Amino acid sequence: MRAIRGNIIEAKSLGKLDILPNGCIITNDDGTTVETLPALPLGFAGEIDDYKDALVMQSFCDMHSHAPQYPNLGMGYDLQLLDWLAAYTFPIELRFADTEYARKVYKRLARELVDNGTTRVSMFSSPHVDSTLILMEELENAGITGFVGKVNMDTNPNCRLVETTEESKRETLRWLDSCGDFKNIRPMLTPRFTPSCSMELLEWLGKLARERGLYVQSHLSENRVEQALVLSLQPGITHYYQSYDRFGLFGDHTLMAHCVYCDDEELEAIRRNNVYAVHCADSNISIVSGLSPVRKMLDMGIHVVLGSDIAGGTSLSMIRAARNAIYTSKVINVQSEYTTPFLTVAEAYYLATGAGAEYFGSKSGFAKGEKLHAIIVDDTALFGTDKLSVRDRFGRCFYMCDDRQIKAVYGNGKRLK
Amino acid sequence: MRAIRGNIIEAKSLGKLDILPNGCIITNDDGTTVETLPALPLGFAGEIDDYKDALVMQSFCDMHSHAPQYPNLGMGYDLQLLDWLAAYTFPIELRFADTEYARKVYKRLARELVDNGTTRVSMFSSPHVDSTLILMEELENAGITGFVGKVNMDTNPNCRLVETTEESKRETLRWLDSCGDFKNIRPMLTPRFTPSCSMELLEWLGKLARERGLYVQSHLSENRVEQALVLSLQPGITHYYQSYDRFGLFGDHTLMAHCVYCDDEELEAIRRNNVYAVHCADSNISIVSGLSPVRKMLDMGIHVVLGSDIAGGTSLSMIRAARNAIYTSKVINVQSEYTTPFLTVAEAYYLATGAGAEYFGSKSGFAKGEKLHAIIVDDTALFGTDKLSVRDRFGRCFYMCDDRQIKAVYGNGKRLK
Repeated sequence: MRAIRGNIIEAKSLGKLDILPNGCIITNDDGTTVETLPALPLGFAGEIDDYKDALVMQSFCDMHSHAPQYPNLGMGYDLQLLDWLAAYTFPIELRFADTEYARKVYKRLARELVDNGTTRVSMFSSPHVDSTLILMEELENAGITGFVGKVNMDTNPNCRLVETTEESKRETLRWLDSCGDFKNIRPMLTPRFTPSCSMELLEWLGKLARERGLYVQSHLSENRVEQALVLSLQPGITHYYQSYDRFGLFGDHTLMAHCVYCDDEELEAIRRNNVYAVHCADSNISIVSGLSPVRKMLDMGIHVVLGSDIAGGTSLSMIRAARNAIYTSKVINVQSEYTTPFLTVAEAYYLATGAGAEYFGSKSGFAKGEKLHAIIVDDTALFGTDKLSVRDRFGRCFYMCDDRQIKAVYGNGKRLK
Repeated sequence: MRAIRGNIIEAKSLGKLDILPNGCIITNDDGTTVETLPALPLGFAGEIDDYKDALVMQSFCDMHSHAPQYPNLGMGYDLQLLDWLAAYTFPIELRFADTEYARKVYKRLARELVDNGTTRVSMFSSPHVDSTLILMEELENAGITGFVGKVNMDTNPNCRLVETTEESKRETLRWLDSCGDFKNIRPMLTPRFTPSCSMELLEWLGKLARERGLYVQSHLSENRVEQALVLSLQPGITHYYQSYDRFGLFGDHTLMAHCVYCDDEELEAIRRNNVYAVHCADSNISIVSGLSPVRKMLDMGIHVVLGSDIAGGTSLSMIRAARNAIYTSKVINVQSEYTTPFLTVAEAYYLATGAGAEYFGSKSGFAKGEKLHAIIVDDTALFGTDKLSVRDRFGRCFYMCDDRQIKAVYGNGKRLK
């Protein structure tokens, strides 16, 4: 048994915030939560991780990112999308043919994810199978839980990253055959996006998803040019989502990044199919895509989770991702003449943590029977002249904290930092 | 003589970026720049501050902020403006009747400004004269250059911060009589904003500005409700700016924060009068004001500088202020269907540094005859797998660096950090 003491802050659902000052989470020896209590039980005999006045918060879920773009983080945002892809993104992804390079990058990436309090992920790798396996290994070794996808892309022969259709299929099978040993990291089918994939490949991937019960992740309606391109590539469809849906790649638990320009029909298809929209606010601004209508999606009952989308997004920090989600919602709030409510900090916290946890089949918060996923935020280095409420300190996290304040991280029941 | 060695990055004007890899700035003993050279002269006999591969950049100018709101940083942004003022802003400003409290806050504030690479400021204090003098003293002691304003506000008797008109005049004179001893911090007249000031007080301040040759700072067209309120308060005017201009408070070097909702006539008045628009992108989103049309102002030839606007803004970091200025401009870029160009990193760098320097009568960059204002950015802790260009490392600063990477700061010729 173990007790984690501190000011416990849970968002059990969207907009709900439960604060237990000087509370205590009791876990059993494998890190499964037994109960959450207002105080340490008298005579508690187990180990105590006493974080005193620090904040005990849910750890983050980063539900969309491109692992091989990590070395480019922070660079190239003066360019428009296509120039940026050519100058920065495709060249760096090509480097992952080299497994030694992959090892170096992914080891550091996994460590920095944990440093930033991210314990669950869904990530794009590159098309390279061996490097993808290294990414999975490094995430698993760092104690992270989640999904990784070898990227499939068989069109646009001018891009040296592209595989032939046969190669893409063969390598996908080789990859799936090789990742049975991971415990917490699982494969997810990952067509890069419709413009990168032939219909033959998409159809084959859809069949594979059905046969093997695999989840799918891709991109949807990120910008208007891409949206128009998709409709021109697959005659007969009226909406981007249909380019996946017709092949069985738009089903339950599919992760669709961005969803900036979905119209009502596309949003309704997302909801109906139990697809998850991954909101990547930072990337949507940085590479000038647009503002995703998150409040509207939430009001419709669509599942929304957050992603850093590095390196279209500029930071691994899900604190920053949550803050940028708030900022995007505030721009929409102003521009709707204050009729569309912005995301509160409590809502952004839930989207960055519990909404992702639920994707993985867990309950949001520190629920009984769930493995512990938590961060300890020690904000004593921040300036304050008075004793602040736990609620104010919690809110302040999303504007003033970074990895320096994240003093400890628990993932899947284990202490990782 | 002193040589500062490193990769020197100057923005001598908007959009211009000069990079001198492994260059060298020579200053004389009082910190005045003598020349900038591509290499250390052979047999250089002075002291050498050798920063090797680090970046030598211009330090920041924070041209609008509220010093007494510093203890509230990061808190309360779920509230709308009026609730936020009542719950957070006014109560904290009231605390500055206590000079001991002021000393504690302003000492820390001055230190953190320097830590973040800000060496020139224009700040609002509170209405309290003695605490305002303490703010000036702490900034001066920290080596910061700039302007501070005792706030004038004599309307809205329900706010306990408000002075009587007589008191406001008397205290302003007492303040001006007491701040003759400061060398680098000067007083600036600071009517809080039109809704806080009677016409009698504004008229008196305008006369004082003329008589004593003082500059003025205030707020302009931050949000639509405020804009409408101003027109109702001063019958006969058609534009917010006229509420200042009619009293001589809208002249050369007046700093007007925000300028979000200025129409063409108001923008033209700003340009004509040589007023400086202070763009506070973070605050304009955080307290849901709107998107300031910075590109349009720049194209018109209006002087634009940047402000953190703490605590409407959420951070002292001008790196973040510059990044948020880019983000705001990118939203405008998307929404204008890519017809209004976004701010490049080089442009944002200039606005956050040299544009402010020019306000103070200096040249942007490391010009001969100017006191050195510089930061040293050591980005070696950031991840990178290859040797990056100085330009890419420079760009990355605005997305990935914070006070940790700012290893040294020079202000007004002296090393401050």
